[in-house]
Parts: sequence; structure tokens; C-alpha cells
Amino acid sequence: MDIHFVTTSFDEATAFTSYINTHPVKMDSAGTQGPSPKRLMLASLAGCTGVDIVLILNKMKVSYSDFSIDTEASLTENDPKIYNWVKLTYKIKMAAKDQSKMQRAVSLSQDKYCGVAAMFRSFATLETEIVFL
Amino acid sequence: MDIHFVTTSFDEATAFTSYINTHPVKMDSAGTQGPSPKRLMLASLAGCTGVDIVLILNKMKVSYSDFSIDTEASLTENDPKIYNWVKLTYKIKMAAKDQSKMQRAVSLSQDKYCGVAAMFRSFATLETEIVFL
Repeated sequence: MDIHFVTTSFDEATAFTSYINTHPVKMDSAGTQGPSPKRLMLASLAGCTGVDIVLILNKMKVSYSDFSIDTEASLTENDPKIYNWVKLTYKIKMAAKDQSKMQRAVSLSQDKYCGVAAMFRSFATLETEIVFL
Repeated sequence: MDIHFVTTSFDEATAFTSYINTHPVKMDSAGTQGPSPKRLMLASLAGCTGVDIVLILNKMKVSYSDFSIDTEASLTENDPKIYNWVKLTYKIKMAAKDQSKMQRAVSLSQDKYCGVAAMFRSFATLETEIVFL
């Protein structure tokens, strides 16, 4: 069984630093010294599915550039405030002949590989869109 | 309704950078250039509940030091791999007379305020422990 371990230290005011393997990640709920902790979940989601897409497209030998992912999420009104709707917009440049492969890559990530997306689907509606640049 | 927005760009290999407000957060599923995307969810959880604790203890006028949070999580075996068990260990130094207030602060965060903990409870068993240093 795989175990992940993260240690997080209080810095000052509303700022904390997590140590993930050797990498420090600064957070601040005031948004001054770093990103707010909750928004890091959206980075986690985009990074997880993004890595899937890159690995799948590379395996399919598809050339692409200018790949980015926009994540938009709505919060519930009352505490504890959770994300109840999330939209991932994949933006990418590639030849028209390869665009169906991108659609296949997004489906594979969303339905099969991306653990973070699977976790999000436990509490939120997850939508995806692909924009070909 | 509050909307959160994060944009994430592909860098190279398995590395991405998310932009959260003005703050860049580097990720790398290979763990070389930054933390793996999935582990960022554990930082998000620790930061979210950590901020709650600090704000509640400050409101209670409790003095403390050396506050940190260890997050340990197990992953399921098969894709999509999700966290199915998470333990948060709060470590903190404070006068013995105030320790019941720390227990109250953790309960308030877990049961009432921490949205990230509420989201985690949709897919994982969440345990907490307090260690007084």
C-alpha cells in the first residue's frame, strides 16, 4: 500500500509551509504570502489530469504546444464551504487530424487515470471542455 | 456565489505551474521540479485546518508555539488511485491548562469550518490526533 506523507509548519499570522518530499509549498489563507490552502486543491486537480494528458499524447506520438488548463470552481454558501462545481478547460494547439486523440486523452484521464478527478467527483460536479488554439 | 479560478501551464516533461492569484505553484509528478500534484491535496488539507486552529486559538487568547501538522494518507491500489484513509497529527506546545481548548479548536475545524476536511470525508476516512509537545 502506497503511503503519502506531508508535514506542514505554522509560520505566522495565517501562513503555513508544507514540505512535500524536499519541496516547500507556502500557503496563506489571506493570500498575501502564498496561495490559499483551498485553491491548492484546484492546482492539484489540474496538475493530475495535465500529467495524464501529456503522457497519453506522448504515447500516441501526437505533437502539441501551448498546453494549459483553466480551473473554475464554485463554493457552497455556508461553512464548511466546499467546491460543488468544477470546470476544467483544456487549451492546446495541435494539428486538426490529431484533435480526436486529445478528446480520447481527456476521457481516459477523467474516467480511468486521474485519482484527483475521481476524488473531486465524490463531492462536486466535474465538467470538461477542450479548446483547440 | 464565490468562484475560485486557477490557471495551470505545461512546462516540460511532467512539470506544470499553477498560478493561484499572483502566486506560482510548481508541480511535477516525477517529484523532481516540484511536489507531485496529488500530494498537494494533503498540503491543502493541512493548511485549511491549520488556519482554522490558529484563528480559533487566537480568539480564545491561548498562547502556543511550535505548531505543525503531519498528514499521512494511504492510496487505493488501482487506477484511479484515491486517498482512502488520512490521519492528521496536530503537534503543538501550550500550557496544560489550555489543552482542552486545543481539543475544542480541532473539533470545531473538523466538524464545522474546514471545507477541505469536509471534501476529504466524501472519499476517505479522516482521523485526527493531538500531540502536546
